[in-house]
Amino acid sequence: MNQFSPIGVFDSGVGGLTVLKALRESFPQENYLYMGDTANVPYGAKSKDVILKLVTGHLNFFSQHKVKALVLACNTASTLIAELPAQPYPIFGVIKPGARKALESSRSGRIGVIATRATIASQAYPNEICSLNPQSVVISMSGALLVPLAEEGWVGDPITNLIVQRYCNIFAEKKVDTLVLGCTHYPILKSSFSRFFGSSCTLIESGPAICEDLENQFANGRLLSNPQEKIGTVAMTITDHSEETFKRVMQVILGTVGLPEIRVL
Amino acid sequence: MNQFSPIGVFDSGVGGLTVLKALRESFPQENYLYMGDTANVPYGAKSKDVILKLVTGHLNFFSQHKVKALVLACNTASTLIAELPAQPYPIFGVIKPGARKALESSRSGRIGVIATRATIASQAYPNEICSLNPQSVVISMSGALLVPLAEEGWVGDPITNLIVQRYCNIFAEKKVDTLVLGCTHYPILKSSFSRFFGSSCTLIESGPAICEDLENQFANGRLLSNPQEKIGTVAMTITDHSEETFKRVMQVILGTVGLPEIRVL
Repeated sequence: MNQFSPIGVFDSGVGGLTVLKALRESFPQENYLYMGDTANVPYGAKSKDVILKLVTGHLNFFSQHKVKALVLACNTASTLIAELPAQPYPIFGVIKPGARKALESSRSGRIGVIATRATIASQAYPNEICSLNPQSVVISMSGALLVPLAEEGWVGDPITNLIVQRYCNIFAEKKVDTLVLGCTHYPILKSSFSRFFGSSCTLIESGPAICEDLENQFANGRLLSNPQEKIGTVAMTITDHSEETFKRVMQVILGTVGLPEIRVL
Repeated sequence: MNQFSPIGVFDSGVGGLTVLKALRESFPQENYLYMGDTANVPYGAKSKDVILKLVTGHLNFFSQHKVKALVLACNTASTLIAELPAQPYPIFGVIKPGARKALESSRSGRIGVIATRATIASQAYPNEICSLNPQSVVISMSGALLVPLAEEGWVGDPITNLIVQRYCNIFAEKKVDTLVLGCTHYPILKSSFSRFFGSSCTLIESGPAICEDLENQFANGRLLSNPQEKIGTVAMTITDHSEETFKRVMQVILGTVGLPEIRVL
């Protein structure tokens, strides 16, 4: 691998595309290799053992393609980052940067986290937030229907608004001023969250948060940036024949112009 | 295997419990061995190749436990019944009995099918229904959010009512008089379907339909019934540590008394 090598981006499905979008906006000259494990989506309702096995099984794919770094663009997978076997490339998760950004944003120290059942059960966000600032109060809630809604593409839909409202009532009651969208699928449904909270709550997304981390890595030379001045490439791989749905949601997130070909592993 | 051997019941998750319930009501003296592949739920959004591999991989479990028959209590798996490798026990799917019951019920010959994306894509129901009666008109619709709603246990919930209404409007417009609930998870949400259709449409469930098939098998001696007069046993296995959610929905379907222990494979 060298500075021209791609940055790997891994998610259980379409959610990681929200991170890919942020990465391309921040580092347009980089090449990206995206993998969505659509054969096994959703991760969030599975046990730690099963998720660890799935993520570990996919690391080799990124070695073979000689990535210079891997972004776990999946919160559920990121909760297990410390337990993954060492790779020839560095691995970056989205939990730490999300926790840091939530603390930067919050004035009251009352922070909400909405995420998959597995991410909530891991306590990764409360642990990270409270280790950075023990005065914080973290309110957590899992939202099992949000990944299927995002994968289905019901964006800005009245039913999605109702489901988001159901899950988020607790955050309004507990007066959080910052909410971590602790699953990379959730920004797809961001309009419903914004509609519910108005300006009372800042929404923290994994994509912009991880970009700040990578910016530091590039700045201190631990990660070599691509010196070419042209726009980088994107290679897109999914693990099951679900191109049609995947493409539909990809268009919602990345737009319809210059989309990469989707390869099925 | 012999007449005392259990009947295997297989589903991707909790949905097959609606079939297990019907089986226990019709054949209480039989012993049952249930497996829910909770590590891989939902099947309905996966491709045929992936589903075939998953189902085939689990057949050995039922051989090892010497079942005298296997009921595929999953419509998505049942669409692939003809492609499964031969086993030492007979395998029964839910598509044929469901199609037959729909035709028995319908006066107008206008039949709706709501099922997972994979079941709809397979065309298994229209093919089966039209081979039995070529005059029939079959209207199909997939409902990707219904399995997550059932797994989440949002039963009789206003949001579930709205989602069922969204998916079922087409059936009302097309004036079907019979609707096949072509996924064994959907009867968990039956109250929402009944609420939408009132008495204008008969709902066909996989459980009672497959029981009629097995009744015939017992009557003609191709399947030996358990001669014991006591109530049979139920052994319950799931493939991932999700006992809590599984148990919650199991209680909705089977009630809270005398529930089997849940073993994780």
